[in-house]
Amino acid sequence: MSYKTILTALLVCCTSFIYAESIESPNRQLKLDFYIESGIPYYSLSFKGETVIGKSRLGFEMMNVPSMKDEFSLRNAHVSSFDDTWEPVWGEVKEIRNRYNELEVLLEQGNPKREVIVRFRLYDDGMGFRYEFPKQKDLSYFTIAEELTEFNLGKDYKAFWIRGDYDTNEYSYTTSQLSEIAEKIKDATEAIPAQSPTKELAVQTPLMLKGDSIYINIHEAALKDYPAMVLKLDDKNFVLSSLLTPDPLGGKGRLQTSSQTPWRTILVSDKAADLLASKTILNLNEPNKIKNTNWIKPMKYVGVWWEMFVPNGKNWAYADTTNIKLDSINYRQLKPTGKHAATTENVKKYIDFAAKNGFDGVLVEGWNIGWEDWFGHMKEYVFDFVTPYPDFNVNELQQYAADKGVKLIMHHETSASVPNYEQHMDTAYQFMKKHGYDALKSGYVGKIIPYGEHHYGQTMVNHYLKAIEKAADQEIMVNAHEPVRPTGMHRTYPNYLAAESARGTEYEALEYINPDHQTILPFTRLMGGPMDYTPGIFQTDLSYYDPTVKKRVNTTLAKQLALYVTMYSPLQMAADLPENYERFPDAFQFIKDVAVDWDDTRILEAEPGDFITIARKAKGTNDWYVGSISDENKRRSEISFDFLDDGKDYIATIYADGPNADYEKNPQSYTIKKYRVNNKSKLNQPVARSGGYAISIKEAKSSREIKNLKRL
Amino acid sequence: MSYKTILTALLVCCTSFIYAESIESPNRQLKLDFYIESGIPYYSLSFKGETVIGKSRLGFEMMNVPSMKDEFSLRNAHVSSFDDTWEPVWGEVKEIRNRYNELEVLLEQGNPKREVIVRFRLYDDGMGFRYEFPKQKDLSYFTIAEELTEFNLGKDYKAFWIRGDYDTNEYSYTTSQLSEIAEKIKDATEAIPAQSPTKELAVQTPLMLKGDSIYINIHEAALKDYPAMVLKLDDKNFVLSSLLTPDPLGGKGRLQTSSQTPWRTILVSDKAADLLASKTILNLNEPNKIKNTNWIKPMKYVGVWWEMFVPNGKNWAYADTTNIKLDSINYRQLKPTGKHAATTENVKKYIDFAAKNGFDGVLVEGWNIGWEDWFGHMKEYVFDFVTPYPDFNVNELQQYAADKGVKLIMHHETSASVPNYEQHMDTAYQFMKKHGYDALKSGYVGKIIPYGEHHYGQTMVNHYLKAIEKAADQEIMVNAHEPVRPTGMHRTYPNYLAAESARGTEYEALEYINPDHQTILPFTRLMGGPMDYTPGIFQTDLSYYDPTVKKRVNTTLAKQLALYVTMYSPLQMAADLPENYERFPDAFQFIKDVAVDWDDTRILEAEPGDFITIARKAKGTNDWYVGSISDENKRRSEISFDFLDDGKDYIATIYADGPNADYEKNPQSYTIKKYRVNNKSKLNQPVARSGGYAISIKEAKSSREIKNLKRL
Repeated sequence: MSYKTILTALLVCCTSFIYAESIESPNRQLKLDFYIESGIPYYSLSFKGETVIGKSRLGFEMMNVPSMKDEFSLRNAHVSSFDDTWEPVWGEVKEIRNRYNELEVLLEQGNPKREVIVRFRLYDDGMGFRYEFPKQKDLSYFTIAEELTEFNLGKDYKAFWIRGDYDTNEYSYTTSQLSEIAEKIKDATEAIPAQSPTKELAVQTPLMLKGDSIYINIHEAALKDYPAMVLKLDDKNFVLSSLLTPDPLGGKGRLQTSSQTPWRTILVSDKAADLLASKTILNLNEPNKIKNTNWIKPMKYVGVWWEMFVPNGKNWAYADTTNIKLDSINYRQLKPTGKHAATTENVKKYIDFAAKNGFDGVLVEGWNIGWEDWFGHMKEYVFDFVTPYPDFNVNELQQYAADKGVKLIMHHETSASVPNYEQHMDTAYQFMKKHGYDALKSGYVGKIIPYGEHHYGQTMVNHYLKAIEKAADQEIMVNAHEPVRPTGMHRTYPNYLAAESARGTEYEALEYINPDHQTILPFTRLMGGPMDYTPGIFQTDLSYYDPTVKKRVNTTLAKQLALYVTMYSPLQMAADLPENYERFPDAFQFIKDVAVDWDDTRILEAEPGDFITIARKAKGTNDWYVGSISDENKRRSEISFDFLDDGKDYIATIYADGPNADYEKNPQSYTIKKYRVNNKSKLNQPVARSGGYAISIKEAKSSREIKNLKRL
Repeated sequence: MSYKTILTALLVCCTSFIYAESIESPNRQLKLDFYIESGIPYYSLSFKGETVIGKSRLGFEMMNVPSMKDEFSLRNAHVSSFDDTWEPVWGEVKEIRNRYNELEVLLEQGNPKREVIVRFRLYDDGMGFRYEFPKQKDLSYFTIAEELTEFNLGKDYKAFWIRGDYDTNEYSYTTSQLSEIAEKIKDATEAIPAQSPTKELAVQTPLMLKGDSIYINIHEAALKDYPAMVLKLDDKNFVLSSLLTPDPLGGKGRLQTSSQTPWRTILVSDKAADLLASKTILNLNEPNKIKNTNWIKPMKYVGVWWEMFVPNGKNWAYADTTNIKLDSINYRQLKPTGKHAATTENVKKYIDFAAKNGFDGVLVEGWNIGWEDWFGHMKEYVFDFVTPYPDFNVNELQQYAADKGVKLIMHHETSASVPNYEQHMDTAYQFMKKHGYDALKSGYVGKIIPYGEHHYGQTMVNHYLKAIEKAADQEIMVNAHEPVRPTGMHRTYPNYLAAESARGTEYEALEYINPDHQTILPFTRLMGGPMDYTPGIFQTDLSYYDPTVKKRVNTTLAKQLALYVTMYSPLQMAADLPENYERFPDAFQFIKDVAVDWDDTRILEAEPGDFITIARKAKGTNDWYVGSISDENKRRSEISFDFLDDGKDYIATIYADGPNADYEKNPQSYTIKKYRVNNKSKLNQPVARSGGYAISIKEAKSSREIKNLKRL
């Protein structure tokens, strides 16, 4: 590690002086400039000599202490570099190199003097910077009124965006120039059960931007004890600035020294694929804090879930009551509707299916009392997380699943009543472990209680982490729905397998999902961490369940297969009904085969909003899986198999759209073909409108295996 | 029970018609009129033919549904009467008669029709009324924007008031005409650690009013799942109206049918003593819900407490650290200050003292980690309620107290971080029971977390009750500090022994308490339930501890004794230091003797703000105790002993102010004299400025006992 201290004592007395310091990325393509001008700190960033982020302000407005936005002088600066390689507990690659050059500037301001550190880290594919408030005499407790961080783009980029909102990320993405956002934002504000769009013109992070041969992604890393950031847009000058999620009293971060903000991240490349491969957000997070991780296992699962979304489907609730008062319910006396999904009998069917097809887990939603009237009225107490409905036998199912070698996955819908959940959490987690559950899907549907809090405020950010930490203490893996968008914290807490925090498959039944959605998600929401997208819908035409309901999943069947590879997650659901998989056993074979943990990943083709093709090498094997998806346009995918070992033969099974496949007209048309491939092979594969293909590639164990196969 | 149904079908169609219905109290002194005029419901109340409450509006503004304030018509009305007698688990009297006449009016309004019931109950000494929202088709969930209930006094009464505030009742009382409140309210707004004075001109309940030979008290009963009410004052027309405590989103009660408001209570008499004796607020509460009550025991206690308030005193905190971050503390590594009060050794001293003097319990504050930096910064996590400081040995003290037959009393300061407390509550209560504690003092110092909630909002009202219910499940008695002011809920939950919710003895050391304070409290705060006032300070001059600190307890020593009788509570502390009691063993004898549970109570003299004299008969005995206190003026108290049994002789020990006693100049001067008394005896006793006297009266067991005693 190289180390340099720059003493700037001469400059301290004179804040109008421009102090400047620069560092470059290890590959020297990125250059960061930091300077103080008339007491205001600024930074800028260039890529290959071209400005990416122009002169951009740093600082804070405060609520209960003087602002920390100007009158700054530099006390000292350190430059250092770091290079290390670490192994994730699970992930897209086996090893991750963490190499950066760092500039740490210690600024002081005000009278009496108060200190803040800004720490910049330059990686080959981007940068991160954060503010740190060291322990000091004249700053202890403080509440932020606003963080003033700017991202001065200075250009009208094409953006892949959803509206800035303090409670939801479940909007459809819009692709437009930054200058067009204002006119499009109303249409982009779809109705979501709990939403708080910002009054200011703003977009969510991760924000994906595309310019002339440049791709930029802005997000944050290691969001902890701080509100999530939305990006306010000045669409005249193309300057983004931070807008933090407020608490009910308007505070935007209640901190005590020593403390720090999350990292603000800017990823930059002239190749879109580089951004998908970036590990900078993970690297900016703290190393794994869980000592024993042998209980943390990537997994594939099925579950009692999609049958409650399809037309004419079943329910979470056991009984049908109107305006029921919780404290007056005796479930044994209620008349069941007969539409309750989470019955002992039905769950056994899923356990049988999981066992037969090699799935690790079975999720069951709607097993516990409270669903008769749980949502939309901000009730403080709905669920207790431990009391099953009369038709769900916890002990019997525990035994049945254990006998079949399948794990049941717990479901805790909190109804966004967070103090209630925290009050029951210890008992609920103990209940899980007692009954053989070691994975949890949590949910935060509805407006947050405490009243006035937001899903992305500091209190909630702390809550999600508390839940993950408490789960880790009990050796429980977590899949959180409706939490704050991930920021790479799964490096630190690898029991945090996946999250929702975006528009997932459920919207195919609830509203709609645009055909380009899955080609944008990896460049946006997935930059922060895995998503429980729940792919695998084979019966895409939902009028199948009720001819009067004209709804469809807007993909081909083959694209659903490809999502298991393009949409990285260590937790993957086969979301469709068992009976639908049984109708297409040959296609289902890919879902049975595909891995959920990887030693290597190659981004073969990538263009946000258009297409993505990815190859991944299954953990501890020589098998590869490829997924390729398109947007609403048909295309040809051209890939090389040069990622395969030299001199070896493989068998590639290609699950592709049929010749006339089309997500609207012919979604279930697919072909399955086997080829002999090696690292010289190439594929030129047609892809349908919102179509895709998936390939499983296994090393040939003998020449006999491949002798009848066509060479690709 | 008489029962009458009035069908008013003919009137329903015509809302401008004036419908009127009346009922009288059983003694016919109070008369209630209810009527609808132009669709608006009103009530009025008269006492002995004179109007007490003039035409006063009823109704609601709503947030998310149409208002329920006009366009009302009457669907029907019921008149009934009720007479029953019940025995409290503990109290001022052995039996309580619950006798009232009731008018229930079912109103409907709007299109589609929505229903509300107003239920009036007239007692001999006052009335209660509440709104009820029955289960109905077109009203299920609703949020109140404001309750419009008026109390149209129409006269400029003398009021004993504190400022309307959503977070505190710890102000000093001001005595003034209603018309003078506006000019005095600024001076009356003393600085309190957490306070939210209403923007509107308003006062707290219970509000005590005095007119020409009339006394009126306005409060509420059975406050549950609803925000507490403040009284807004129109000081031109002398109309009070309800102002409910808002939640952070401005809601003032989030309800679901069926539900009801608390009772609004108006007590009326021409004798102040009648109001002190009133059981109407208790009667309006639900009967006891706790089946087995044999673990609920009124008690006297001492504790590690006052020594942390006196000058040069000790601390709750173990170590002295500035701006300490909780997550970085290792208590074993901290250097103790040597001023920590809750040490094993010190607690043993209190246990010894309690055992020697017959006290039931020892309270220990500051036993658990977190006090180094607990208050003033709205930190979500401070206390865990189970981890003792290194110098407090839980197991050793459990054994020591058990060996001496003394109960330790647990202390849970929540730092007003309520979700944190609820999260730890189950474990904390289990910890108590495991370690032999069966009584709890809880505290809610500081601004409430969740941010923007108030101590008196619906969420907090629900929290306090949840804590009491959970404590009852574990057979734990509760003494809550800084909760919402009591409204008689101790009838329903008799494990709720006492509360603070007013300016108590601690303010004698922190700021000051006015000499008339204790003569007002029984007419105000204590109307709703017992207060843990913590009397018994013998060393009233606090410069005793530090000559530079010119602070004093603003009473004489004898008045401190009298408070054990005048300030009713089943939980009474002897708050001073053991060494101070040892300096005055003869006076201390009264505190050792005085009972905390009673078969009978007689209000002998009472004038709010001036003086109170009360006699009480100790539970299950023939012993009586008398307490008499004065305000800042000296006076003569004249009482008769006619409450004693006819034909019996008693020994009365009178603990009185010394001839020159004065709360400022000579507070520790007292005399103790014994007399022979019977039910013909009379006493004419001088009382010093802010002075008092206490009498213990025991039946003479033999003539020998009394033969040398002077007859009174």
